[in-house]
Amino acid sequence: MAKDERPDLEQDDLLVVDAPMPDEGARPDDRIDDERHDEENRLKPSYVRSVRDALADEDYSTVYDLVEPLHPADIADLIELFDPDERRDFASAVTDLMSSDVIAELNDYVREDMMESLSARSVASIAGQLETDDAVQLIEDLDHADQQAVLAELDAEDRAAIESALAYPEETAGRLMSRDFVAVPEHMTVGNLIDYLREDVDLATDFFEVFVVDYAHHPVGTCQLSWVLRTPRQIALTDVMKRDQTLIPVTMDQEEVALMFQKYALISAAVVDDSGRLVGQMTVDDVVHIISEEASEDALLMSGAGEGDINEPIRDAYGARVRWLVANLGTALIASLIIASFGAAIEQLVALAVLMPIVASIGGNAGTQTMAVSVRAIAMNQLTRANTGRMLWREMRVALLNGATIAVLVGAATGIVFSPMLGAVIAVAVLVNIVTAGLAGVLVPVIFERLKQDPAVASSVFVTMITDSMGFFAFLGLAVASGLTG
Amino acid sequence: MAKDERPDLEQDDLLVVDAPMPDEGARPDDRIDDERHDEENRLKPSYVRSVRDALADEDYSTVYDLVEPLHPADIADLIELFDPDERRDFASAVTDLMSSDVIAELNDYVREDMMESLSARSVASIAGQLETDDAVQLIEDLDHADQQAVLAELDAEDRAAIESALAYPEETAGRLMSRDFVAVPEHMTVGNLIDYLREDVDLATDFFEVFVVDYAHHPVGTCQLSWVLRTPRQIALTDVMKRDQTLIPVTMDQEEVALMFQKYALISAAVVDDSGRLVGQMTVDDVVHIISEEASEDALLMSGAGEGDINEPIRDAYGARVRWLVANLGTALIASLIIASFGAAIEQLVALAVLMPIVASIGGNAGTQTMAVSVRAIAMNQLTRANTGRMLWREMRVALLNGATIAVLVGAATGIVFSPMLGAVIAVAVLVNIVTAGLAGVLVPVIFERLKQDPAVASSVFVTMITDSMGFFAFLGLAVASGLTG
Repeated sequence: MAKDERPDLEQDDLLVVDAPMPDEGARPDDRIDDERHDEENRLKPSYVRSVRDALADEDYSTVYDLVEPLHPADIADLIELFDPDERRDFASAVTDLMSSDVIAELNDYVREDMMESLSARSVASIAGQLETDDAVQLIEDLDHADQQAVLAELDAEDRAAIESALAYPEETAGRLMSRDFVAVPEHMTVGNLIDYLREDVDLATDFFEVFVVDYAHHPVGTCQLSWVLRTPRQIALTDVMKRDQTLIPVTMDQEEVALMFQKYALISAAVVDDSGRLVGQMTVDDVVHIISEEASEDALLMSGAGEGDINEPIRDAYGARVRWLVANLGTALIASLIIASFGAAIEQLVALAVLMPIVASIGGNAGTQTMAVSVRAIAMNQLTRANTGRMLWREMRVALLNGATIAVLVGAATGIVFSPMLGAVIAVAVLVNIVTAGLAGVLVPVIFERLKQDPAVASSVFVTMITDSMGFFAFLGLAVASGLTG
Repeated sequence: MAKDERPDLEQDDLLVVDAPMPDEGARPDDRIDDERHDEENRLKPSYVRSVRDALADEDYSTVYDLVEPLHPADIADLIELFDPDERRDFASAVTDLMSSDVIAELNDYVREDMMESLSARSVASIAGQLETDDAVQLIEDLDHADQQAVLAELDAEDRAAIESALAYPEETAGRLMSRDFVAVPEHMTVGNLIDYLREDVDLATDFFEVFVVDYAHHPVGTCQLSWVLRTPRQIALTDVMKRDQTLIPVTMDQEEVALMFQKYALISAAVVDDSGRLVGQMTVDDVVHIISEEASEDALLMSGAGEGDINEPIRDAYGARVRWLVANLGTALIASLIIASFGAAIEQLVALAVLMPIVASIGGNAGTQTMAVSVRAIAMNQLTRANTGRMLWREMRVALLNGATIAVLVGAATGIVFSPMLGAVIAVAVLVNIVTAGLAGVLVPVIFERLKQDPAVASSVFVTMITDSMGFFAFLGLAVASGLTG
C-alpha cells in the first residue's frame, strides 16, 4: 500500500460515499441498445473511447457526466477495460462514482491492484460499507500486515464479522456466507413475524427466506416470503414453513455448495456449524458467480492456462502456463525417443516421417474430445463408480465408429498416393490410436478423480502423451513389422 | 411413442400423482453423509447397486422403500445412473415415485428417451402438472406429430401457455420464462398488496419480487418481498419499489439472459414483449442451469466434443465428433505436405524427423492456452474491441517469456545430444512457433466473434493448423537455410 497519505486523502473523501439507493442509477432503457451499450450489453468502444479521451484531457466533469448514468456493474466493466494507469486516474478524478458497489463488482485482480494504491484507512472505509462476504473478498488477498492494518481501522462489529470469516479456509461456505439473515423462533405466527420484520430496524433489507430455529438455534424449517405473504396472520409459522431443508456445513467447499444450489434449485440455504447451529446463509446471487467460475475453470485448466483471467498479472500467467509447456516438452521428448528408435526405417522410407504426425494428431484430438466429456461429467457428479463401466463401453463404441471412418479416409488416400501396403498400415495405426485415445480419455480423468486429484488439471498432458506415443509407435512399428522398410 | 395403450394404462395412474408437498421428501440429514450419499452428495455405488439388485429381483416394495426418502432431484440422478432398460422397469414398477418434479429434473436425453415410450395422454398428464417452462422443455424435442398429440390432450389453458412459448425461438427468454408472476397496479399501497396476495388463490406460490405495472401493463418498478414485509401497510408501493429494473426482451438469447443475471446479481427479472408490455418473468433458479451450461459448453466445443453430454445417443456423439476429426485430418494433411516438401532434407538428417514433432506440439499447446483464455474472455464480455489491442500485447509478452524458456531448454538439450547448430535451429523455431501461437490464440477467436461465429466452435482447428504448419515449416526451413543438410 502507498505509505504516504497525501494522495489518498482526496480519495478518502469519496470512499465514504454510500452505495447508490435502489432507485438511483441506470433506467432499464439505459442498459440495452442505448448509446452506451451494444446489442450484447457490452459497453460500446465509441463510448469507452469518449470517456478515455475526456480522462486524458483531464476534463473530469465530462467524465462524470458520461459515467454517472451507468449501473455500478457497468462502471466496474468500464474500469476493467481501462489500462492500469487510466484506472487510477479515473478513481482519483471522479471519486464519488467509485461506490462500494462498483468496487465489489470489480474483477479480483483489478480490485487488488487498485487497493494496493490506497491507504489502510481508505480500504477500511470501503470494507465498512460492504456486506461481510464482499468485504472479505476485498481484504483476503492482501498480505497479512496490510490485512491487520485494515482490520484495525474497522469498527469492532465489522472487524469481528470479517475476522470470523477469515478464520475459515478459502473457498468454503464460511468465507462466502452472509451473516445478515432472518431467523425466528418456532412459536411465532405469520402475524408475529410480519410485526417483527416491520419493527426491527437492524434487519437485512434483502432476503428471500426466513429461517425458523429451535431454542438451540438449530434450523427446523425455512419459510419463503411469498408463503408468509399469502397466509393469514394467525397461522403458525411451523404450519407454513418447509421442513425439508438443504443445510450447508460451514466447511463445505464452494464447488459443492454450487452443485447443491443447482441440484435442488435453491434460492437461499442455511449454513450450519459442526454443532448444527445456524451461523449464516448463502443466497443464490452469490452462488451464481461460483457456478460460472467452476464451470469455466475446467476449460482453462484442461488447456493448461491456469486461472486464465485476462487481468491476471503477466508473471502469474507465465508461471501458470510455462509449467505445462515444460510438462508437454517431456511428453514430446518421449515421442521423439520412440521416433528415434525407428530412425533407420525413416531413412529408408521418408514417407513415414511425412505421415506419422497425422496418426499422432488425430489420436490427440480424439483423446481430447473424450477427456472433455469425462471431466465435465465428473465435475457435474454425472460420472460415478456406478456408471463408469457403461461410460467406458459407450466411448469404445464411439471410438470404433470414429476410428473406422478416419482409417478408411486416410488409408485410401495414402494407398493411392504412396502404396496400398502403407495405406493399410496407417489405417490400422489410426484405428488403434483412436481407440487408445477413447480409453485414455475416460480412464485418465477417472483415475485422477479417485486419487482425489482434480481431473481437469493434469489429464490432458497424460492423454496427449499416451496418444502421441501410441500414434508414432503403432504407425512406425507396423511399418517395420509389415516389411515396408525392407 | 408406443402405439398400443395397454402398457401405458398402469403408468397413467401414477402420472397424475402430484409433486411432493414442500414438507415431504428428504430431511436434511438424508441429504449429506447418510447411507445413501457420499461426502460429495453423490449417490453411493453401494446404494445404487442395492436398488439395481432389488429391481432385477422384481422386489418392487424394496425398491420403493429404498427410493422413497430421496429428493426428486436425487431420484432423477438415480435414474440417469441406470441403464436404459432399468429406467423403464423402474418407471413402470414404482410409478408413484415418478412425480413430475423427478421428470423435470431428468437429463434432457434421458427424459426424451423415457417419454418416447409413453402415450400422448401420459405425457400430457405430466406436462399438465409442470410449470409452463418445464412443460415446454418436456415436449419441445418431440417431433411435430407427437407434439400435436400431446397438446390435444392438454386442457385449454395449459395448451395456450405452451403454444405461446413454442411460438418463440428455442433458447430465448420467451421459451424459458415463467408465465405465472405477480403484477399489480401503481396505485396500490403495501396493505392493498398484502390483502390482494392473501385473497387471490390463483397466484403463484413461489415468487421473490412483485412487478408494479402501469395502465398499459408496462413494468414501472419491482418490489422485493422483503421490502414489502418491512414497510408499514399505508405506504404506497411506488415509494417502496425499485424503479431501476433490468428488463429482458422476450426474444433475448438465453446466453445474454444468463450474463444479465450474473452481471446485475438479479433474483428475478421482468420479460417484456416488443411493445414493452410485461409478459413473463425469469427467476434465477431457472437461469442457474443456463449459466452452468453456457460456461461449460465452451470447453466441450473447443475440444470438438459437441454437446458432450454422456447421455447423448451414440450416433449423435459420433456425428458431432467425427466432423472435427475429419477437419483435423485436413489440417494434418497440410502439415504433411510441408514435411513432404522437405523430404530430401529429412533423408539426409533423420534427426529432423525425430525433433520436428516437438516444435509442432509445443506450439499447439501454447496456442490452446491462449485460445482458451480468449474464448472465455469473449464469452464473459471481458474482451471487446475496446481492449483487444491490450490483450494482444499482453499475450505477446507472455509468449515471449514462455518461448524463451522453452527455447533455452530444448535448444540446450538438442545442442548436447545432436549438434550446437541443430540446437540453435530448434530453439529459434520453438520461439517463433510459440509467438505465432500467441497471436493465433487471440486473433482467431476474435475474428470468428467479429464474423458473428461462435469463437469456441472452430477456433481450435485453425489454431492447431497454424501452429502445426508453422512448427514444421520454421524448423525444417531453418535447418535447410542454416545449411545443416548440406
